[in-house]
Amino acid sequence: MTDSSSPPRRAIVIAVGSELLTPLRADTNSLFVTARLNELGIEVVAKLIVGDRRDDLAAAIRENLGRADLLVLTGGLGPTDDDVTRQAVSDALGLTLREDPAIVERIRARFARRGLEMPEVNRVQGQVLAGASVLANPNGTAPGQWIERAGRRVVLLPGPPREMQPMLVAALDERLAPLCGSARVYRRVIGIAGRTESEVEEVAQPIYSTWAAWAPPVSTSILAAPGQIELHLSVRTSSEDEGKVVLDRATAAMLPALGTDVFSDDGRSLEQVVGEMLRARFWRIATAESCTGGLVASRLTDVPGSSDYVERGVVCYSNLAKTELLGVSEESIRLHGAVSEEVGVAMAVGMRERAGVEVAVAVTGIAGPGGGSARKPVGTVVVAVAFPGGTRVRRFLFLGVRAQVKFQASQASLDMVRRAMEEFLPAPGA
Amino acid sequence: MTDSSSPPRRAIVIAVGSELLTPLRADTNSLFVTARLNELGIEVVAKLIVGDRRDDLAAAIRENLGRADLLVLTGGLGPTDDDVTRQAVSDALGLTLREDPAIVERIRARFARRGLEMPEVNRVQGQVLAGASVLANPNGTAPGQWIERAGRRVVLLPGPPREMQPMLVAALDERLAPLCGSARVYRRVIGIAGRTESEVEEVAQPIYSTWAAWAPPVSTSILAAPGQIELHLSVRTSSEDEGKVVLDRATAAMLPALGTDVFSDDGRSLEQVVGEMLRARFWRIATAESCTGGLVASRLTDVPGSSDYVERGVVCYSNLAKTELLGVSEESIRLHGAVSEEVGVAMAVGMRERAGVEVAVAVTGIAGPGGGSARKPVGTVVVAVAFPGGTRVRRFLFLGVRAQVKFQASQASLDMVRRAMEEFLPAPGA
Repeated sequence: MTDSSSPPRRAIVIAVGSELLTPLRADTNSLFVTARLNELGIEVVAKLIVGDRRDDLAAAIRENLGRADLLVLTGGLGPTDDDVTRQAVSDALGLTLREDPAIVERIRARFARRGLEMPEVNRVQGQVLAGASVLANPNGTAPGQWIERAGRRVVLLPGPPREMQPMLVAALDERLAPLCGSARVYRRVIGIAGRTESEVEEVAQPIYSTWAAWAPPVSTSILAAPGQIELHLSVRTSSEDEGKVVLDRATAAMLPALGTDVFSDDGRSLEQVVGEMLRARFWRIATAESCTGGLVASRLTDVPGSSDYVERGVVCYSNLAKTELLGVSEESIRLHGAVSEEVGVAMAVGMRERAGVEVAVAVTGIAGPGGGSARKPVGTVVVAVAFPGGTRVRRFLFLGVRAQVKFQASQASLDMVRRAMEEFLPAPGA
Repeated sequence: MTDSSSPPRRAIVIAVGSELLTPLRADTNSLFVTARLNELGIEVVAKLIVGDRRDDLAAAIRENLGRADLLVLTGGLGPTDDDVTRQAVSDALGLTLREDPAIVERIRARFARRGLEMPEVNRVQGQVLAGASVLANPNGTAPGQWIERAGRRVVLLPGPPREMQPMLVAALDERLAPLCGSARVYRRVIGIAGRTESEVEEVAQPIYSTWAAWAPPVSTSILAAPGQIELHLSVRTSSEDEGKVVLDRATAAMLPALGTDVFSDDGRSLEQVVGEMLRARFWRIATAESCTGGLVASRLTDVPGSSDYVERGVVCYSNLAKTELLGVSEESIRLHGAVSEEVGVAMAVGMRERAGVEVAVAVTGIAGPGGGSARKPVGTVVVAVAFPGGTRVRRFLFLGVRAQVKFQASQASLDMVRRAMEEFLPAPGA
């Protein structure tokens, strides 16, 4: 019954539903679909979101059929007039629709189990495209459909995630996994702090541009996430070992060029990395925050198990709090200003002593929009670290609105803690 | 220079970026774009997500140009090889690209302000399509571009939201709003804390279902956001006054049914509402956090001007910190456990006394994944408030992973502060 024994390579995912074209709701089904397809070595080359209009959807299907060998449609299989996926596929592929009495019976029985009579509108969910295989839906009324023609596949899945997800997993296991052999996509993410996107590009591009010629080739993309730059590496291979070896080789080629600005090469966040470094050193940390207002402590404690190494933190927005909670002298604040290297260091040292911890980080700055001056504009932030190696302090100037200044300041704080730990007790092998 | 004086009606939004085709990241820019276009009466009829491949993107632009009268592209304007939007539009529309020395100078100056030299790769961001208007980017290096030809418009916007959003707003104000006549969509958001989505639906549906018959009709949708439920009201009319009157009437009909669970009827966040209530009462606040790890303080200080009323905060993850920083007795912790009403109240009262503020909020709980027990499972959270009206304490059980428990606990903390203030000193007219 199948005329295609080679696996698909390129997929396009089409989410159907006018509600996905409003400002209120984004398509997230495609993330799950993409993850499952990638595991089989199938790349998603585009995604579309189309409203509940039969003509629009039929046109989108026709166009994209030539561009990919697998089309996955989610949504539009319900019983109402708004649900047009079955008809649109029928229009696009010229396949007739016919009611399957066995499906209608199953839907009727499903209603009966809940003591309800099946509304007549639900009959339409029993319509099957000529030549399609039916995909069972244990979690809802609408079955899915799977069509193969001339080496191309079109899959119709329901929209609700709890119906779509198990149906997709079962269909891929049964119908594609055996064809895909063992080819898979393996990924790695290198996280970089303290450099801009173009600085990373300038250093990284000469290195990763050579990877395209490797066998198998490694693809790379640069992503500017808030407060950090990420290099995403991926390789497609049929051997997990080979995937690991190739990604290890690429990573090893890249790391020396970026030096200590790399904080992780396995996708971990900066707070996770800092947490594991603290744990490995048996150190505890305390935070003293002014302009970040608790964000550094909150990010550190986002990590499960962080109660093992986060001892305490203070948020000292007022000068009085800086004096009472950290022992910063009023005179120092008057002399240097609350946002100064001197006060930053005093905050870190005061926190470290009072909490009796190994490492304390302090951050003071002007998050804006008010409070800036010519000498200390909005975005001026001082971060200080006190640790067994002494103290470190740095002044930054961050751009952006208040929340962005806060986040970048928290990122700089975590990164300075990381660098201090690395300097004092380098990781084995580093 | 424009050959189109009639406003667009149908828009297609194209998000560019291979990272948006991975399982890791969804396009969310299109939600903001859709909201702004809808306000002008422009419908979004489809959305596409395309990778960083020049040919694919050019083909998508060509195809969809015939299907809508406005194409909005986000992303792909960076300085790297991955950034192909400028070239793809050039290919699709047959427009040449030329470097604009003035833009390159602006980019160079932007780097210089931060004490940096512009990397040579950034020159490419100064390339402009023939006939395009340049859209200034006060928040980044890449300017946007606006092209009009034969009644069709193509807009190139950068990907980072803080660059894209103000640029889009300015461009629409200047270039489309004058054409769109006076019909606009006016919206209002009612924020509700302390009820589930179905509880809100049960109370609200009989009320808002009558609004569809009004002239002009009011549309309503219920959205479950983290820790709160939102009712989104919208009305389309050519008179701003009428829009306001109709939304006022709808809001006035809804509010009595939801009572004090409504925390705002103008889209303000809970931290903004709490901040304004503190300011109106001349009160200052201090926070004492265990399981939220600084998130309550961080959210309070996300609000500009919050240094006027946030006096200080402590994060006391360890029992020692609870004793040293808040004066909670070791015996009380031993007797009742760190997560108990008794310890919560002691934390709030201790914080209020030591900080000398009018209101203190304390939160202690088990964020998970470890630390739960049969009597106090993961998600158990105690919130206590100490204020001039005495103390209030409540125990919650939140579902979800660690970050979700933390967020819901911070939401409950802010909401209990709000309710305490409202009880002690009700707002005039309430």
